[in-house]
Amino acid sequence: MKKKPENFSPLREKLHEIIFEAETPEGKLFDIVLLVMIFLSIVIVMIETIPGISPDFKQILFVAEWVITLFFTIEYILRLYCVYSPVKYAKSLFGIIDLISILPSYLVFFFPGAHSLMIVRGLRLLRVFRIFKLDNFLHQGNMIMSALKASQPKISIFMFFILLVVCIFGSVMYLVEHNVNEGFDSIPRAIYWCIVTITTVGYGDISPVTSFGQFIASLIMITGYAVIAVPTGIVTSALIQQPQESLYANTITCPECNLEGHDKNAKHCRECGAKL
Amino acid sequence: MKKKPENFSPLREKLHEIIFEAETPEGKLFDIVLLVMIFLSIVIVMIETIPGISPDFKQILFVAEWVITLFFTIEYILRLYCVYSPVKYAKSLFGIIDLISILPSYLVFFFPGAHSLMIVRGLRLLRVFRIFKLDNFLHQGNMIMSALKASQPKISIFMFFILLVVCIFGSVMYLVEHNVNEGFDSIPRAIYWCIVTITTVGYGDISPVTSFGQFIASLIMITGYAVIAVPTGIVTSALIQQPQESLYANTITCPECNLEGHDKNAKHCRECGAKL
Amino acid sequence: MKKKPENFSPLREKLHEIIFEAETPEGKLFDIVLLVMIFLSIVIVMIETIPGISPDFKQILFVAEWVITLFFTIEYILRLYCVYSPVKYAKSLFGIIDLISILPSYLVFFFPGAHSLMIVRGLRLLRVFRIFKLDNFLHQGNMIMSALKASQPKISIFMFFILLVVCIFGSVMYLVEHNVNEGFDSIPRAIYWCIVTITTVGYGDISPVTSFGQFIASLIMITGYAVIAVPTGIVTSALIQQPQESLYANTITCPECNLEGHDKNAKHCRECGAKL
Amino acid sequence: MKKKPENFSPLREKLHEIIFEAETPEGKLFDIVLLVMIFLSIVIVMIETIPGISPDFKQILFVAEWVITLFFTIEYILRLYCVYSPVKYAKSLFGIIDLISILPSYLVFFFPGAHSLMIVRGLRLLRVFRIFKLDNFLHQGNMIMSALKASQPKISIFMFFILLVVCIFGSVMYLVEHNVNEGFDSIPRAIYWCIVTITTVGYGDISPVTSFGQFIASLIMITGYAVIAVPTGIVTSALIQQPQESLYANTITCPECNLEGHDKNAKHCRECGAKL
Repeated sequence: MKKKPENFSPLREKLHEIIFEAETPEGKLFDIVLLVMIFLSIVIVMIETIPGISPDFKQILFVAEWVITLFFTIEYILRLYCVYSPVKYAKSLFGIIDLISILPSYLVFFFPGAHSLMIVRGLRLLRVFRIFKLDNFLHQGNMIMSALKASQPKISIFMFFILLVVCIFGSVMYLVEHNVNEGFDSIPRAIYWCIVTITTVGYGDISPVTSFGQFIASLIMITGYAVIAVPTGIVTSALIQQPQESLYANTITCPECNLEGHDKNAKHCRECGAKL
Repeated sequence: MKKKPENFSPLREKLHEIIFEAETPEGKLFDIVLLVMIFLSIVIVMIETIPGISPDFKQILFVAEWVITLFFTIEYILRLYCVYSPVKYAKSLFGIIDLISILPSYLVFFFPGAHSLMIVRGLRLLRVFRIFKLDNFLHQGNMIMSALKASQPKISIFMFFILLVVCIFGSVMYLVEHNVNEGFDSIPRAIYWCIVTITTVGYGDISPVTSFGQFIASLIMITGYAVIAVPTGIVTSALIQQPQESLYANTITCPECNLEGHDKNAKHCRECGAKL
Repeated sequence: MKKKPENFSPLREKLHEIIFEAETPEGKLFDIVLLVMIFLSIVIVMIETIPGISPDFKQILFVAEWVITLFFTIEYILRLYCVYSPVKYAKSLFGIIDLISILPSYLVFFFPGAHSLMIVRGLRLLRVFRIFKLDNFLHQGNMIMSALKASQPKISIFMFFILLVVCIFGSVMYLVEHNVNEGFDSIPRAIYWCIVTITTVGYGDISPVTSFGQFIASLIMITGYAVIAVPTGIVTSALIQQPQESLYANTITCPECNLEGHDKNAKHCRECGAKL
Repeated sequence: MKKKPENFSPLREKLHEIIFEAETPEGKLFDIVLLVMIFLSIVIVMIETIPGISPDFKQILFVAEWVITLFFTIEYILRLYCVYSPVKYAKSLFGIIDLISILPSYLVFFFPGAHSLMIVRGLRLLRVFRIFKLDNFLHQGNMIMSALKASQPKISIFMFFILLVVCIFGSVMYLVEHNVNEGFDSIPRAIYWCIVTITTVGYGDISPVTSFGQFIASLIMITGYAVIAVPTGIVTSALIQQPQESLYANTITCPECNLEGHDKNAKHCRECGAKL
């Protein structure tokens, strides 16, 4: 918790309590309204793109969207106003997310497509963990992140080889198929097909038609089958080798017989019965 | 085993034995007839939907279905009648499954489509484990369930991120493709495509046609390739870290304080220090 | 090694050596000829089915096939003749494989299609492990088999639940889609689609067209994504928990200090230096 | 580091420093120029194949390609000239890669298609690890390789069985479908389909149309679902069982018999019993 600066008016204090804390009833209410707004704004962006909605309904969505955007803008300004250290907040992860979730609405005046980027508001939902005190979830997320970070060098080098493999296989397939199959009309497209295949996605928008092409495709698939094991193995071993929160042993040594590794809540030595 | 109530007629007693126990020959016969009926009723529901079956055959299926439904209804009433505690049974998992497996046939008078919901009768097949004393299978199932339960927080937070990722990637693909590709005609549809891709299902009913779209699709696939490792790693590590036959605890109870779960080679109680 | 019966002529002895052993030059030659024949017969069966091969070539293949079949038939009779215990051989795994690899050629007189079943001759290739003394490979295969056997109860119950899930999801999809999508024209077909989806194969020959159908399909895919982890986790934990061939410890106890767990080829106790 | 031969002119010395070392500014510059050239040449090969690029641009690419090829050729000759042991270099992995990355450009005079093989130049990018001293990445790569090597016998025998399974299932599907489905027009094609299915790629270019075919396809998919677990399990267990920083051995050498690899807390040599 950052220290409160001295010249801090009661209004800012009150606002800080409502916006940043979730202990008081007003704070809780504010947080819930916020979550509903975020969720609504995401749904609106999605619905707007569905073809065949009536112009009237579109008008309503348009208004609703701007109401929410204004709410978010005011909220962002108030956060900057009532936070103890505005610069720190603006540079924090949540500060940046808050900013980029209001920018797309204004960018739409310059780039018509920017509008759909409003979906990044979804990131604001991350706040839900803080609001509902889902610390356990955050802790679990950190464990996944640290396992991924630990396996990152292995994954990187593996990805590097996969990229080499798809480039080489893609070029070979281009040579084999491009005369008879318009799906393989360039090497980049053949590489795209190769990625589709080796990841076992397999759209089928492009697929080999010659016997030899199908033979090579089979090789690629079997390669993919074998190598899908590698990232899984890497992440699994990282997750398993993560230090567990030592459930079975505490660090107390028996004062009589010096035995270590007692049960977490043991009060007596399990060897000699001495008090720990 | 629940206690038998005092005012319990010999008929109810006999029925209870036949319907709920599988030790007597009559009980075994009843159970086997029941399983055959369940299996038949599922097959009938499936066959009925196949287009091009003759009206005569349909008529036979219709009659067979109602015979089975009546049998199930009578069975349900008898179960309620002869069970020691009807309320407990009606609220138990098997009681609810028994009820919802007869409801769809009657609901068909109100909602024509409800009929196909009869497939939930398949859940009654779970009874097979009880009847054939497949305790070992149930135990294995419990081990899987407990591993899944242990990995549930990690899986949940992972799914939350995956949802964010597919929403963002879906929106980007909508921006890139929706002008030239009618498959990406709305963000929800683009998100559907993104889920199809990241889970490596890859129907190909919707697939990118622009070069840039195919480039982003490649990114999504490689992401999917890397992240498929995460739930696997989570579940695998949960399964491996499941307590094997309790390595850390013996079955001795402290004679003084009745504490259980002592270390395997403990000689003194870890709570009160008494000799074990 | 089975005991040689007493009344065993030198001819049968010689044949036994050639056919069943691979130590002598004749035995080795016989085995290599056999492998080539098996391989050729498989290739012939495959090539025969390719449309557009000339009648002349087909004639050659036909003759070649019958030559091989006759060779296999004679070989089978000789094996029965020169083996120490014909009944034991005929009932053994290799004996059965040898028999069913010659049957299809003769069955073709009764069932025209049976011919293609000749592909089961591929199983004879298993002999390659015996011939080339690939014991290590067989040992590795046994390790995989025993891991699969150990995980079989868990896999079975998991598959049972998956079947229930695909039946229920399939029925729901049938209800949602069958009016507008001829791909979902019956529940069995909807279940087929559901299996295609949950295993992440995703042909795309059948795919949902309604928004609600695509929503449910997304749920199924995410389910499939999570559950693909389960069999992997089961098999991986079975493979990891397999007893390794104790590399680090032998079972000798030090005669002086009774220390156990010495290195495999230790000659002196690592604690007190006494001779083991 | 190989020893410098005695008759080594200062020019060769200087060139050696520039080309093979990355410590001096000139050496670093050379390496970076090299990487840019490699990357450029790959991009050029890919772009050239894109249909619809203007002849003028094609001309530029053609010239650029030959400039790079000449650069690589001169570089290769200089490497041979200034290396301490030309034969050793020419036979080393990097020597071979350097050679095969310039050959395709010249081969194009004889085989028009060879040109696209220039993509193998991508392998030269492996040099990036040496240049940027990414030793940690190389170490991680070695760990993956050694885990794959350790699991290679298991993977091989597993692949052998998978090949048998796809051959048999492919033949069965051919029998079931080839009269009504032109996708299954030969056994090799049916095997191709079977590989597409069992690896869960699922293009959908070929898919079963009969009910029985779809039933068998479901079996194959469920098989694939179960067996995808096996290579993953094998690789994961190999990665987990990789010797971590040697838990079982210390680095002390026996002063008497010079045996290494003693147990971590050994006090006496396990071979001769001498005090460590």
